[in-house]
Amino acid sequence: MQEFTLISRYFAPLAQGFAGADGLRDDAALLTPPQGMALVATTDSMQEGVHFIGNEAPALLAQKLLRVNLSDLAAKGATPWCYLLNLSLPPACDEAWIADFSHGLAQDQARYGIVLAGGDTTNTKAGISLSLTAFGLVKAGHRLVRRCGAQVGDLLYVTGTIGDGYLGLKAAQGELAGVSEQDWLYLLGCYQLPEPKPELAIALVGLARASMDISDGLVQDVGQLCTASGVGAEVRAEDVPLSDAARRWQQVHPEKRMELLTGGDDYELLLAIAPENVKDVEALAASWCQPLTCIGVVVAERKLEIRDADGMPLQITQGGWQHHFGY
Amino acid sequence: MQEFTLISRYFAPLAQGFAGADGLRDDAALLTPPQGMALVATTDSMQEGVHFIGNEAPALLAQKLLRVNLSDLAAKGATPWCYLLNLSLPPACDEAWIADFSHGLAQDQARYGIVLAGGDTTNTKAGISLSLTAFGLVKAGHRLVRRCGAQVGDLLYVTGTIGDGYLGLKAAQGELAGVSEQDWLYLLGCYQLPEPKPELAIALVGLARASMDISDGLVQDVGQLCTASGVGAEVRAEDVPLSDAARRWQQVHPEKRMELLTGGDDYELLLAIAPENVKDVEALAASWCQPLTCIGVVVAERKLEIRDADGMPLQITQGGWQHHFGY
Repeated sequence: MQEFTLISRYFAPLAQGFAGADGLRDDAALLTPPQGMALVATTDSMQEGVHFIGNEAPALLAQKLLRVNLSDLAAKGATPWCYLLNLSLPPACDEAWIADFSHGLAQDQARYGIVLAGGDTTNTKAGISLSLTAFGLVKAGHRLVRRCGAQVGDLLYVTGTIGDGYLGLKAAQGELAGVSEQDWLYLLGCYQLPEPKPELAIALVGLARASMDISDGLVQDVGQLCTASGVGAEVRAEDVPLSDAARRWQQVHPEKRMELLTGGDDYELLLAIAPENVKDVEALAASWCQPLTCIGVVVAERKLEIRDADGMPLQITQGGWQHHFGY
Repeated sequence: MQEFTLISRYFAPLAQGFAGADGLRDDAALLTPPQGMALVATTDSMQEGVHFIGNEAPALLAQKLLRVNLSDLAAKGATPWCYLLNLSLPPACDEAWIADFSHGLAQDQARYGIVLAGGDTTNTKAGISLSLTAFGLVKAGHRLVRRCGAQVGDLLYVTGTIGDGYLGLKAAQGELAGVSEQDWLYLLGCYQLPEPKPELAIALVGLARASMDISDGLVQDVGQLCTASGVGAEVRAEDVPLSDAARRWQQVHPEKRMELLTGGDDYELLLAIAPENVKDVEALAASWCQPLTCIGVVVAERKLEIRDADGMPLQITQGGWQHHFGY
């Protein structure tokens, strides 16, 4: 089919109502943030065979692509605003593929209040290559909560549960054994469709000294936050929140517990909270009925220690899926 | 090598001086346009095997990636400001590759006054996949010159010369015969390293009713401008400006003249100029010593006609390289 038919049929409707997109008839978008607001921009790519298998439903891929970027915006306390899409597809992706992909975007646009502002569509010789650049809004003059603000004595919190995305990846790869069908489906869903919570994040991040999303595995990301902040951390493995499904898996595979902490695809928040803000932060999460768990503390020594229930250091093994070497 | 070493060694220096990039230690950039300015955003992808062969010098790929985006900014009259980079590389791209790639970016950052603000670096299973999102500045409240503003009676102008990029692609593919070594090298250079001229473009575009860059072939892009504007055009093939090298090639291959008009990779400007602005536009180009050529006129009938020196319609054959099906 004609490329312009494709754009006007499937993508222009996603840009409706956003004046700066000019109906996707142009090569550029005009981004005029609302009065008194500044832009936060983030971009993430997903490559077939690396970040996804390639047999996923296109709508799910579209939603995951959008959500991994929304997760980055959430970690900066930015309100989703608009996005640019780079869609590079091999010949095998036909109109039905594109229709389903755009349908996934439409669903998540409605859910997260974000709109398509522009993009680029090209062919690839082999393999789907996806990039998305998402823009969020913060108050102009606002000091962004970065990775680098953690201070000694801050408490480390995570939202949600950790390790489900990693187990879901194993499910997608056909390598998840010893779980019920129900747990298998739950975990697969966590991997395919993470659920960033921008509204909660915006409120929480405002109370944090440092913040990032957990995408490369908890251990690696705590390490990144510490490196950026010039500090270290002690994490209590027992306190890392697990879903019921992940807990049942861990009971069957006690020797693999560290994999849950080093696997990726969590898309939860990691926050460093000053002790004086702990009460407010916990009250906020409780009022949203969202799990928020203290997993450790920031220390001066530039070293990351994961301790077991008896306080003994655990050896950090590299599990999971080192897909990112990114920034 | 460690991903973070890679970023701090090769990419963080490219973000120096741009506060919103936070030294590339975070997953998001803060984009606060200078007072009174709005952002124009554009994004373009380049895929190995489709937009480039893969054996090019990494620095040249980096510069081309940046320049195809700068060409889009130029066509909107936007001043280059900053950019995000999505770099997805197969294992074969080693540290030397990345060093050369970043060196190319550094050179063009200095040349075009643009700075790295953030990005994402990932692996691919096979093939280099590059995306870049460039931001330019325009005055807030400024009405962007779009593709859709052309009116009947407007004159169509192009900057520079047409067809060199297409012949350069043939050179790169080993399919360019019957030209001197000097011409071969010149044309290859045009393909590998287009030269958008943002300063001239900003001045010219301000006088245009419609504007776009020519990247998919002159004929196709005139067609796009007409479609967006709800008009048609008559283009005089004889008036389409050719370089000396392209002219010599055409003398050897007179039957292939249409290929120069349908091939891609020109990265020149296509402008629709109201008759009353023609004098100003030509004076401006002359004062910059830049070629600017009237190639035709906008007509009411929604049809694109290419005419020869005798005014006879030429048949439009599809030559060149249909790499984009993009918006």
